Amino acid sequence: MVKSIIIVFCFLTTLYSTVIAGRPGIYERIPDPEGQYPRLGACPDDHACIFPADVAQFLPGAYFDLRVELHSYDKKARTPAPEPYTQFKTTIRKNNGSWMDVNEFFGFQHPPELQHWHFSWIDSIETRYAKQLGLDKVPVDVNVSSRVWRKIKFDEPGTYDISVQYGPKDAYTVRYTVIQPKTPSKKAKNAILFIADGCNTAMITAARAVSRKHTSGKYESFLSFEDFDNLGHIITHSIDGLVTDSANSASAYSTGHKARPNALGVYTDSSDDPFDDPKVELITELIRRRQPGKGIGIVTTAYGQDATPSSLYAHTSSRFAGDHIADQFVHGVSTNWVNVTAPDVFLAGGAEYLRGPDALNQTDYHPLLKQMNYQIVLDKHELNQYHSDDKLYGVFRKSNLDVWMERNVFINNTVGNKAAPDMSGKDALGTDQPGLEDMTIKALEVLKKRGGKDGFFLMSEAASVDKQLHTLDFPRSWADLLELDATIKKTVEWLKKNGEYEDTLILFTADHGHSFDVYGSVDVEFIQKHANQKKEMLNSIGVYERSGWPGYFDNDGDGFPDNWAPQITLAGGSNNGPDHYESWILSTDGPKLPAVKSQDKTHFVANKQEMAGNYGDGLHWNGNIPLDQGLDVHSMTDVAIYSNGPGSDLFKKTMENWELFFKLTEALDLQHPTTTAPKKDEKQQH
Amino acid sequence: MVKSIIIVFCFLTTLYSTVIAGRPGIYERIPDPEGQYPRLGACPDDHACIFPADVAQFLPGAYFDLRVELHSYDKKARTPAPEPYTQFKTTIRKNNGSWMDVNEFFGFQHPPELQHWHFSWIDSIETRYAKQLGLDKVPVDVNVSSRVWRKIKFDEPGTYDISVQYGPKDAYTVRYTVIQPKTPSKKAKNAILFIADGCNTAMITAARAVSRKHTSGKYESFLSFEDFDNLGHIITHSIDGLVTDSANSASAYSTGHKARPNALGVYTDSSDDPFDDPKVELITELIRRRQPGKGIGIVTTAYGQDATPSSLYAHTSSRFAGDHIADQFVHGVSTNWVNVTAPDVFLAGGAEYLRGPDALNQTDYHPLLKQMNYQIVLDKHELNQYHSDDKLYGVFRKSNLDVWMERNVFINNTVGNKAAPDMSGKDALGTDQPGLEDMTIKALEVLKKRGGKDGFFLMSEAASVDKQLHTLDFPRSWADLLELDATIKKTVEWLKKNGEYEDTLILFTADHGHSFDVYGSVDVEFIQKHANQKKEMLNSIGVYERSGWPGYFDNDGDGFPDNWAPQITLAGGSNNGPDHYESWILSTDGPKLPAVKSQDKTHFVANKQEMAGNYGDGLHWNGNIPLDQGLDVHSMTDVAIYSNGPGSDLFKKTMENWELFFKLTEALDLQHPTTTAPKKDEKQQH
Repeated sequence: MVKSIIIVFCFLTTLYSTVIAGRPGIYERIPDPEGQYPRLGACPDDHACIFPADVAQFLPGAYFDLRVELHSYDKKARTPAPEPYTQFKTTIRKNNGSWMDVNEFFGFQHPPELQHWHFSWIDSIETRYAKQLGLDKVPVDVNVSSRVWRKIKFDEPGTYDISVQYGPKDAYTVRYTVIQPKTPSKKAKNAILFIADGCNTAMITAARAVSRKHTSGKYESFLSFEDFDNLGHIITHSIDGLVTDSANSASAYSTGHKARPNALGVYTDSSDDPFDDPKVELITELIRRRQPGKGIGIVTTAYGQDATPSSLYAHTSSRFAGDHIADQFVHGVSTNWVNVTAPDVFLAGGAEYLRGPDALNQTDYHPLLKQMNYQIVLDKHELNQYHSDDKLYGVFRKSNLDVWMERNVFINNTVGNKAAPDMSGKDALGTDQPGLEDMTIKALEVLKKRGGKDGFFLMSEAASVDKQLHTLDFPRSWADLLELDATIKKTVEWLKKNGEYEDTLILFTADHGHSFDVYGSVDVEFIQKHANQKKEMLNSIGVYERSGWPGYFDNDGDGFPDNWAPQITLAGGSNNGPDHYESWILSTDGPKLPAVKSQDKTHFVANKQEMAGNYGDGLHWNGNIPLDQGLDVHSMTDVAIYSNGPGSDLFKKTMENWELFFKLTEALDLQHPTTTAPKKDEKQQH
Repeated sequence: MVKSIIIVFCFLTTLYSTVIAGRPGIYERIPDPEGQYPRLGACPDDHACIFPADVAQFLPGAYFDLRVELHSYDKKARTPAPEPYTQFKTTIRKNNGSWMDVNEFFGFQHPPELQHWHFSWIDSIETRYAKQLGLDKVPVDVNVSSRVWRKIKFDEPGTYDISVQYGPKDAYTVRYTVIQPKTPSKKAKNAILFIADGCNTAMITAARAVSRKHTSGKYESFLSFEDFDNLGHIITHSIDGLVTDSANSASAYSTGHKARPNALGVYTDSSDDPFDDPKVELITELIRRRQPGKGIGIVTTAYGQDATPSSLYAHTSSRFAGDHIADQFVHGVSTNWVNVTAPDVFLAGGAEYLRGPDALNQTDYHPLLKQMNYQIVLDKHELNQYHSDDKLYGVFRKSNLDVWMERNVFINNTVGNKAAPDMSGKDALGTDQPGLEDMTIKALEVLKKRGGKDGFFLMSEAASVDKQLHTLDFPRSWADLLELDATIKKTVEWLKKNGEYEDTLILFTADHGHSFDVYGSVDVEFIQKHANQKKEMLNSIGVYERSGWPGYFDNDGDGFPDNWAPQITLAGGSNNGPDHYESWILSTDGPKLPAVKSQDKTHFVANKQEMAGNYGDGLHWNGNIPLDQGLDVHSMTDVAIYSNGPGSDLFKKTMENWELFFKLTEALDLQHPTTTAPKKDEKQQH
C-alpha cells in the first residue's frame, strides 16, 4: 500500500501548485452548502478533512495530534457508501518551501495505521425530521479512511501547509501558523482566570443594579472587577457555528484552538469514539512541561467534570462523559500521550464520579487520589482547617454545588438532597458546602505554598450564573455572579496582603452569553394580585420613565442585596426558551424549572405546577426553540473580559476566544520551547 | 415676604448642622417608596426638590439654571392640595464653609419670581389603572411653589451644598461638585462622536457575523471600529429609572447631567411647560464660548429634531416638541439665556418642521436659515456638489431618512412616499437621499474648511439601528449599523488623507441598548414551507452544534452582504415586544411593523396582515410589555464605547453616560473657563 501511494504521489506532484493555489478558506469565503447540517464541522472539502482545522495557530513546541479523514459517500444513493479511499497521501511544506511526506517530516518510520469506520451524515433538515414529515429520506452513509499522527509538534515559527491528495485532481490543503514566541515586557508570575459562565454584558448591568448604591442614578461604586485596568470583548463562535457551548469555548481558552460544541482539548473527528479525537495541548499541560514549579489550581461551583474545569485536564469530544473525565484526572488519556495535569488544588462538586454507581467501572477514586498525594476534604469545615503542604482535592457535593441562594438564604432547601460528597446518601447541607470565596482563597493559600517563586495559575468558575440562566431563575443567577464579584474583591485583598498583587494577572470573563437583558421594572405584588389577568400583568411592568429603580438595598455592604424579594424588581428575560411562565416572583423553595418533559416525553411543556404554586401563573412566553430543548439556550453575543496586572494590556480590545490562550501564555512567558524536566511529583504518577 | 423668610432663616440656622449632617443621598441608599410612580424624578425629599439634582457635577464656568420646588400635598385627602409653601429659603455653602443666601451668592439683587402651579401625582400603580380596575382612586393634587435662578455658574472647583429650608425641621440639601479642570496630555484638535442608536453588544456581534469573512470560525477582519485603540462600557440608566430613552441619554453625553426620559439639556421640573425647565449647558454651547473658532457638525439619518441631534442644540423636557425644537435651532430658547448653537453643518431629515403645516406656526424656516448664512441642500446630488465655505444645512426627507436597505436594495419601496424635502408632496426617492457616509464625509469637508486650525466637533448618528430594532426588523437594523461601520472606515481614510488623523479623537458608542441577541441559526425556507406548523417552525431553528453559519457573503468587499435573504440566517430576537409573529424572512416590500393598533385603538395587536402576506405566519411571540406599547422597548444593558486617537485612554473602562461629557471636554481641552468672545458670525444672529 505504501508503495502505491508513493506512485500516486509522484503522479500528482505537478498538480499541486494549481490545486493549492486555489485553496479556499483563507482567501475566499465558502458559503457552506450544508447550512445547519454539515458533514463534519470545519471540513469544507468535498471528501477530505484535516484536523487541526485550516488556519489553526500553534506555539512552537506545543504538542498536538494530526488526523486526516477521507470520506467516501454517494449523496444520491445515500446508502451503502462506496468503497473507502485507500489511495491518499499527506504532505507538508514549511514557509512555502518544498513539499515532503508528512511521516518523514515528523519522524515517523511508518505511517500510522489506516483506520476505517462509518458514520451517518444527516445532510439536511428534511433528513433530520424525515420521520415526522413522512419523508422517505435516510442519512447518507459515509465510509471513512483515516490516519492519525499523535504527539507531534512544530519546533519553529512559520507557516506550515498540510495537504492530502486523494485523486488525480483532488486535494485539500490547510495552512497552520506557528507563531513567533513573544516575551512579555513584564512577566506575570501568577495568573487567575475567573469565569462567570454564561455571563453577558446585561447580566453585569443587572448584578450592579441590584447590589450597588446610587444617588440620582449615579453609582457610588461599580462591581469589583470593573476597577480592573482594561476591558475587552471576546468573540465566542465555535469552529463551525454561531453559538458555542461551554466545552468548546473553555477549550478555546485552554488550548488556543476553536472546536465543535461538546469538545474538550480535541478537534472532533467523525468516529463514534469520543476518546480518539486529535488532541491539542492544554495550557496546564504546557505549564507542567515549561514551568514545572508552577502551581495549578481549579475551582468551580459546578461538578468537577463539567465543561469548564475539565477543559484544564481532559481530552474528549464528549463533555458528557463525566465518568471518563474523572478517570482522565487520575490516569490521563489511556491510549495516549497526555500526562495527567494533576492540579495542585482542585475544589468542586461531582462526588458521584469518584465513588459509587456513576463512577467509571464503579471505581473508588478516593484511594487513587491519595496515591497521587492528594489530601481530600469533603466540607467547608475540613476545607477551612486545611493547612498542609500537600495537594488538595475538595469535593463537596454530588453534582453541582448548590447555588449561593440555597447556601446562604434558603438553606432549608438543601435538606433532603442526599448529595453528601462521601456518597453515603446523607445530605450535603448548604451550610456545609463552601462558597466560591472560601474555595478560591483556600486555593490561593495552597498555590502560594506549592508554587512558591514559580507562581501559580488558577481558574475559578462561577458555574451557576449559566445554570440559573438556563432555567430562567434570574435572581439566583445574579446572586452567583455577585458571589464571584465578592470573591474577586477578596482575592485582590489576599493578593495585596500576600505581596502577590503586582505580579498577578487577573482576568474576569465569560465563555459565552445568554440572551438576557432587562427592559423595565416590574411590580411583583401587582402581578401576583392579578395572576391570570393578562392586561393587568402587562401593566405591572414599567418601561422608560416608569422603569423605576428596584427595591433592593445592601445596608451591610457585603455586596449582596439584604433583601431578595422587593416589591419592585427587574423586568428581565431571555429572548429564547421553552414554553414557560414568568411572574418575576422569587422562588423561595428552590431554583425554578421553567419547563418539564411532557407526558409522552417527546417535548417540553411549561412547568405550570411550579408556577401555579407560589409564583402566580405569570405571563406566558411561547417557546421559540426546538421542542427537544427544555431550557433557555446560549446566545451569540460577544462577552466582556476585564483584566488587571502584568500583561493586562493584551486583553483590552476585541479578540476571539482562541486568542486568550496566546495572550495568557505570552503574559506568563510560556511561549518559548524549553527542555525542562517535569516536576518531580508529577513524574511519580506514571 | 423677603423679610419673613429671613426671620425663618435665622430661626432655622441652628438646625442646619443636624439636618445636613444626616443628608441622605450620598451616604445612604434611599429605597424609593414610590417605586415606578415617584412624585417627580430625582426628588427623594418629601416636599422639596432641587434641580440640578443631588450629586450633579459641573465644569467651572459652565452655565446652568437652578430650580427649587416645594410640593404641598395630602396623600390621604388627595385633592385639593393644601396651600402652597410660601416660607422657604435657599442657601448655599462652598467647601463646607458658611451658609449664605443663594441670591447673594449668585449676585441676584432680588430673588427670582415665586411661581405656582399644580400637578397630578399618580402615586401608585393602582392609581394609574384605577379606572380599569374599578378603583375609586384619584391622583394626588400637588400644589407647587418654585423659584428658578437662570444663567448661573460656579467659577471655582469645589463642593457646593444647596439647601432649601421649608419648615422648622424640614430641609433638603443637595451637594454639587465642580471639578478641577484637567488639561489633556495631548489635546484632541477634533472629535467625532459616532452614535449607533440603540446598539447593544450582541448587535455588533450580529453585524460582524453577516458581513465578515471567516475560516474555521475565525474572522479575517472585525468591524472597522473594533480596530480602535480602546474599548469601554457605558452605563445608561436615566436619573430615576433603569431604562433610558434616547433623549436623556444623548443629553447626558451632551451636558454631563443625567435627566429624565424625554428631556434634552434640562432637568425635568413638575410644570406643564416643556420649555421652562432648568437648563444645563451643552457641549456645543461650551465650544461656542470657549473655542469659538471650532467647527460644529451634526449628522443623522433621523429627522433633525429627533432626540440625538437635538441634544446638541435644544433645551426642552419634551423631545416630542419637534416644531419647537426646529424653532430653537433658529431662535434659541426664547425666554432664556441660550444662544443658538448654529452648527456649521447640519444634515438630516425632518423637512416637515421647516415648512408646512407641522412647522411651528407654519413658519417657513428656509429663508430664516439663509439669513443665518446657511446654504440649503435637498438631495444627494446637491450635497455632493456643495463646495462652498458657507454653513451647510441639508434636509433630505420628511421624517427620518429611509433606511439603508430602502436606499440601496429595495429602492422601489420609496416610490410614493411623498416625502420630498421641499414639502412639495413629491417623492424622496431612496436614490436621491444621501447615505450616512455621504453626509459624514461632506460634513468633514465643511468642518475642515470652517474650523481650520481650531478643529471641529462632529456628531454622526446611525439612527435607524434603533428604529429598526423597535420594529423588530433585524436585517434592516444590521444594515444601518454596517452603514455606520463603512462610514467609520471612510472617515478614518479621510482623516489620514487630510492629515487630521493624529489629532482626532474618534468615539463609537450607543446611547442605550435593546434586548437583541442571536441564539441560533434558522432555515427560512423550511419555516416558510411549514408556516402554521409550530413544531416544524421550531425545528427550523438550529441551536448549539446546529447553529451553522448563515449564508451571507460579501464578495465585493464593501462591508455589506451581497445577499440579504439567504436560506440560513440568524435566529435572533428581542426579549420584549408587543404580540407579534416572527419568521425571520426578509421583508422585501418595506420595513416591518410587527404590531398595529387594535380596532378599538386601546392596545396593539400582532400585524397578522403583514405576516400572512409575504413572510409566513411565523412563530407567535406573546407580548410582554404594557398594552399601550406597540414596539419593542429599550433595555438596560451597558453599551460599548470604542475610542481612538488623542484622549482615547479616557474611555477604556466602565463609565456612566454623564461621564462621557467630562472625558470629551477633557480631551478637547474645554474644561478651563475662558473669556473668549463669541465667534463673529454667531454674534450676528442675536
